[in-house]
Amino acid sequence: MGWGITFYEGKGCRSFKDPLPSSQSPIAELVTNYPIKSEAVICHIRQANSGGISLENTHPFTRQMWGRNWTYAHNGQLKNVQGELPVQLHIPVGATDSEHAFCWILDQLHFKFADKEPTATVLFTFIAKLSVKINALGVFNVNITNGQYLFAYCANNLHWITRRAPFGKARLIDAEVVINFTEETTESDVVTVIATQPLTNNESWHKMTKGQWHLFCLGESIASGQEVLKVEN
Amino acid sequence: MGWGITFYEGKGCRSFKDPLPSSQSPIAELVTNYPIKSEAVICHIRQANSGGISLENTHPFTRQMWGRNWTYAHNGQLKNVQGELPVQLHIPVGATDSEHAFCWILDQLHFKFADKEPTATVLFTFIAKLSVKINALGVFNVNITNGQYLFAYCANNLHWITRRAPFGKARLIDAEVVINFTEETTESDVVTVIATQPLTNNESWHKMTKGQWHLFCLGESIASGQEVLKVEN
Repeated sequence: MGWGITFYEGKGCRSFKDPLPSSQSPIAELVTNYPIKSEAVICHIRQANSGGISLENTHPFTRQMWGRNWTYAHNGQLKNVQGELPVQLHIPVGATDSEHAFCWILDQLHFKFADKEPTATVLFTFIAKLSVKINALGVFNVNITNGQYLFAYCANNLHWITRRAPFGKARLIDAEVVINFTEETTESDVVTVIATQPLTNNESWHKMTKGQWHLFCLGESIASGQEVLKVEN
Repeated sequence: MGWGITFYEGKGCRSFKDPLPSSQSPIAELVTNYPIKSEAVICHIRQANSGGISLENTHPFTRQMWGRNWTYAHNGQLKNVQGELPVQLHIPVGATDSEHAFCWILDQLHFKFADKEPTATVLFTFIAKLSVKINALGVFNVNITNGQYLFAYCANNLHWITRRAPFGKARLIDAEVVINFTEETTESDVVTVIATQPLTNNESWHKMTKGQWHLFCLGESIASGQEVLKVEN
C-alpha cells in the first residue's frame, strides 16, 4: 500500500509520497522526523485498485487554481469516470479514477467561474454538488483543500473530531501509543482531524452521513450541508 | 539561499525544496541519501531577489499540462512581468518574477494549442519564441521539462556537457571531490548536465550563446536554434 502526505507552509505546500508501503520507504523515515507545523495537511494510504503502483498514481494530488495550491485525496472506487466525467483542460497525469475526478472538478470550476474566484461558500457549495455527481459513480469520500479551507464530503465513511484547549491525550486504535497533545499545541490552537475511521478509542468522533459535507477553516467547521443522493451506493 | 530539486519517476515527479540554505536543511540530508534514478531532473539554488524567502517562492515550480508534469527553473531577474506578461488562466501562487513568467508561458501554450498538444518540435520552438519575449524584460536563463523533453534557453549564462560511455571521472570546481561516473552508470546511459557555470574543471563544457536554445531527450540534444534578440541585455 502506497502512501502520501501533503502539508502547507503558507501558500506553498510540500508532498512526501511513496508508491510502496511506508515500512519500506526512506521517505517515511524523513516524514516521521520532520517538524510539521501546518495549517492544512492531507494524507492518504492507498489500496491500489484503479491504476498501477507508481508515483503518478499516488495520492494526494496537487494542482493550482486561482493562485493557490489545491490538494485532493479520495477514498473509494468510481466506475467509468472517463465516460461519465469528460475532462478537457485538466488532463490526468496518472491512470487513477481518483485523479480523473479531481481533474473533472477543476474543469467544472473553470467552466463555472473562469478567472473569477467566488466566495468560499459559493465555491464549496458548488464542489458539494459536483461531489454528488461523482458519488453516483461509486464511493466518493474526499478531502480537498486550497491551504486556506478544507472541504470534506462523505459517501459512506468519514469521521471527524475537533480538539481545542484544554488538550488531553489520545489513545491510538492501531498502535499502543498515547499522544499528549498539550506537548504539541498552544492554548489558541484548534485542530480538526478527518478520517475514514476514528483513529482513537478514548474520544468521541462525529460520524458523517451519506451526502454530508463540512467546510473547515483553521480547525473550525464553518459551514456544512446535507446533499440528497439520487443513486444510493 | 534556498534550493530545490525535482526529479521524475516515470510520469510522476517529486520535489524536495527548502527556502533556507541547504546547510540548515533536514530535507537536504534526505536528498543526499536518496537513490535518485531519473530520466529528468531540475535543480535550482536561489538568490532571493524578487519575492520573499518562502516555500511558495522556491524553485523549481511544477504545474500540469496535457497530462504531464511540467517543471521549470529560472536564473536571472525580470522587470515588470505583471505589466508585460499578463496572466489569465495560470495564476502564480508565490510572488516571484520567475513563477509569473512560467505561468505566462503555460497561458500562451493554452491560447496557442488549447487541448491539442503539438509535436515536440513545434511546441519547443514556440517556447523558444516565448523565451525571447521574456528575455527582453531582463535575464532569462531557463530550464523547462515535461519529464520527457528538457528545454534550455540561454540569456547570458548556460553551459552544458553530455557524458556517455566510456564514462570517466569528474573533478568538481567548488569541492574537493572527484566523481567516478563508471560506478553510477551503465554502458547505454547518456547523461547531459546543464548549468549556469561549468561544474567541473577537467571536462569541456559547451557554452551557450545569447538567444540559443537546446532541446534534450534522454540525454541527447535532439534540436537547437538561435533566436535573434531585439533587446540586448
